[in-house]
Amino acid sequence: MAKPLRVGIAGLGTVGASVVELLRANGPALAARAGRPIEVVRAASRTPKPDLGLDAVFDTDLKSLASDDVDVLVELIGGDTMARDIVARALDAGQHVVTANKALLAAFGGELFDKAEQGNLALGFEAAVAGGIPIINALRNGLAANEVDVLAGIVNGTSNYILTAMEDDGWSFADALAEAQRLGYAEADPTFDIEGIDAAQKLAILAALAFDTDIDFTGVHVEGISQVDIEDIRYARELGFSIKHLGIARLTDAGVEARVHPALVPDTLLLAKVAGVMNAVMVHGSAVGPTLYVGPGAGGMPTASAVVADLVEVARGTHTVPRAPERCLRSLPIDGVACPHYLKIPAIDQPGVFAEVADILSRHDISIEAVIQRPQAIRAGAEPWVPIVILTDDVAETVVEDSVAELGRLPGVTGTITRIRVADLGAMMPAA
Amino acid sequence: MAKPLRVGIAGLGTVGASVVELLRANGPALAARAGRPIEVVRAASRTPKPDLGLDAVFDTDLKSLASDDVDVLVELIGGDTMARDIVARALDAGQHVVTANKALLAAFGGELFDKAEQGNLALGFEAAVAGGIPIINALRNGLAANEVDVLAGIVNGTSNYILTAMEDDGWSFADALAEAQRLGYAEADPTFDIEGIDAAQKLAILAALAFDTDIDFTGVHVEGISQVDIEDIRYARELGFSIKHLGIARLTDAGVEARVHPALVPDTLLLAKVAGVMNAVMVHGSAVGPTLYVGPGAGGMPTASAVVADLVEVARGTHTVPRAPERCLRSLPIDGVACPHYLKIPAIDQPGVFAEVADILSRHDISIEAVIQRPQAIRAGAEPWVPIVILTDDVAETVVEDSVAELGRLPGVTGTITRIRVADLGAMMPAA
Repeated sequence: MAKPLRVGIAGLGTVGASVVELLRANGPALAARAGRPIEVVRAASRTPKPDLGLDAVFDTDLKSLASDDVDVLVELIGGDTMARDIVARALDAGQHVVTANKALLAAFGGELFDKAEQGNLALGFEAAVAGGIPIINALRNGLAANEVDVLAGIVNGTSNYILTAMEDDGWSFADALAEAQRLGYAEADPTFDIEGIDAAQKLAILAALAFDTDIDFTGVHVEGISQVDIEDIRYARELGFSIKHLGIARLTDAGVEARVHPALVPDTLLLAKVAGVMNAVMVHGSAVGPTLYVGPGAGGMPTASAVVADLVEVARGTHTVPRAPERCLRSLPIDGVACPHYLKIPAIDQPGVFAEVADILSRHDISIEAVIQRPQAIRAGAEPWVPIVILTDDVAETVVEDSVAELGRLPGVTGTITRIRVADLGAMMPAA
Repeated sequence: MAKPLRVGIAGLGTVGASVVELLRANGPALAARAGRPIEVVRAASRTPKPDLGLDAVFDTDLKSLASDDVDVLVELIGGDTMARDIVARALDAGQHVVTANKALLAAFGGELFDKAEQGNLALGFEAAVAGGIPIINALRNGLAANEVDVLAGIVNGTSNYILTAMEDDGWSFADALAEAQRLGYAEADPTFDIEGIDAAQKLAILAALAFDTDIDFTGVHVEGISQVDIEDIRYARELGFSIKHLGIARLTDAGVEARVHPALVPDTLLLAKVAGVMNAVMVHGSAVGPTLYVGPGAGGMPTASAVVADLVEVARGTHTVPRAPERCLRSLPIDGVACPHYLKIPAIDQPGVFAEVADILSRHDISIEAVIQRPQAIRAGAEPWVPIVILTDDVAETVVEDSVAELGRLPGVTGTITRIRVADLGAMMPAA
């Protein structure tokens, strides 16, 4: 019988408990696939978890995992500083590492991948992005023959659940968020998810791997979805789009464009139909063309599926040791982005306002693709106003900003102008 | 500089030429990812291909590839007997093998995988199923922690192109086929594709890997799409379905169900929206849940992407040596399948016919989910007739057959009854 792969688990929360359960439930099949058994020999967590049946190997001290009898550390404690310490310690001690920690990699990925490379060790992170969808595997192995130039994804289930509930059921943002919290799809403080920080960390990790470059996480442009109104969802629907919280990364001659923001996704793309807590990542490769991967992006068992997949590779010896990127491309500022835009302009219902709006757009060379303006109910005690909804063709970021500022100064414009980018992925990606 | 991986290519058709091109165009990047260069040192094909710049290493004799200076044979000649000979010879000589040949694996996979296992060699076949979509990689590595119990796919681009053209553009089957041939998406003799044999070979390969069993290819139930009428496409659309040429494989306690046939796919599934020549495979895993993979299923470059991905793994030494399946599950006959059905019954427009139809269904305990009957234009010189379209709930195969036979004997039923299964994948698969 081959020597088992000896695992030390740090963190026994939802994912940790699921990893323990999965290794136990699928033990024989995993041993057959991996070529040897995979055994938890040490586990550490701040609070004991007697239900997991690990008492014999349990310790509250994380340092207990840096022991000779552990081949691979599974880091599931989250956060960055403590996680960085135990991962660095593990690699220095010659242990492989498997992690689900996107914040850790977004902040300290460079130094930790270097350590792993120097030690000829695995640093698996399939579980850090898009839950159980084997996207890291696809980028690293399945698409290894390609130069990837664009990727785009829905990689936060909280945001996607909220936007789907708004679109499918007509809920307001606040109601959809409350429902997400009730169902456990959103935290009590949902900022990290709905403001796009979680998605940005995942996008940075994907882009670094796909484009073979270091990515400065702080160079990712991030916007959340809390300003998306049910009215915008309806107008987008009418124009043939769904609004999604999208991460887009593009490799250009000038550097890497990486951004997370609400985006109108056309119905012609499968991505527009990815609903609820499902995640999806689209990757365009130079040889294969457009590919799409869809699946559960979070949850104990889906994430454990990814963690254990990495463990199987280490057990088999088929893991890939990290390789320092060939380059360190500059992160392009959002100013360089040009794409179509959705504009919703609250205007006083008087003659001339529309002409003034059209004139400003014309003077900025902004081409209009579609317009919706319908009568609005009269609000008590105020002048009647209507939203003028405009879909533009490609416009540069700075031009849109200038135009929106100028539009906002019109006397006939009565409130904040809503501006949402359109996902211009077009012919590159799998179409419905 | 590390020793190169020395490749011998058999077959220089569309895929072979693309592999040569891809290795040349991406040489440096591939060498960096693979840890060593990948070089074509021998090439063989029935007719010389001077445009490929391989004259120095070219031979018309396939046996020239069984040489000491070749580390890995890339088999791209297609067909089964000659391909089997050269693959067996390569493995016997200690060469790794990478193939795109589904017919070969469906017929001789068992014996060839055994040879590879005994020789501790790679037998890569990512390119044999779903073109550039890294589905074999996903099943083998990314989803290694799961027990897979269901998979379903659109794995033939010819059929999917035809059905999409019928649905989106209202073309007849014959016109859509002619257009597919004109565009090069269908062969002059399209039987292999439209009758589902190609899809069945791919499904057998996927099911064998996913369920860890030998699969008897002849046990796959196969039906083509040549009887699908534009009228059925429209009725399905009205009922909320798209008709796709689907391969479904299911692991049950009694054995493996594997079938290829036209199927009504509900709009709630992303699979229903996969259009044109794109392929898609849905896999349900015990830990991860439902996952979906979409991309180009054929073509020189997409297929070459998969071939070269396998080569990179061999070069890196991260390939997986085949392992004999744990079991050899029986293939279940189609009789055991139960699912909802679409029935189109051409009936004389007279009182009582509908009641007779309803009575027969009732006596067979078939529950009716939906009915469409509309007036039909009167045909000159014949009695007026209408199609009665019925969507049933779950019905067992044998019961449907008996019912359709009995319905066909009704005096009021004037022609062949159309029967199309509904893809009952439900909550298990990614929903729109």
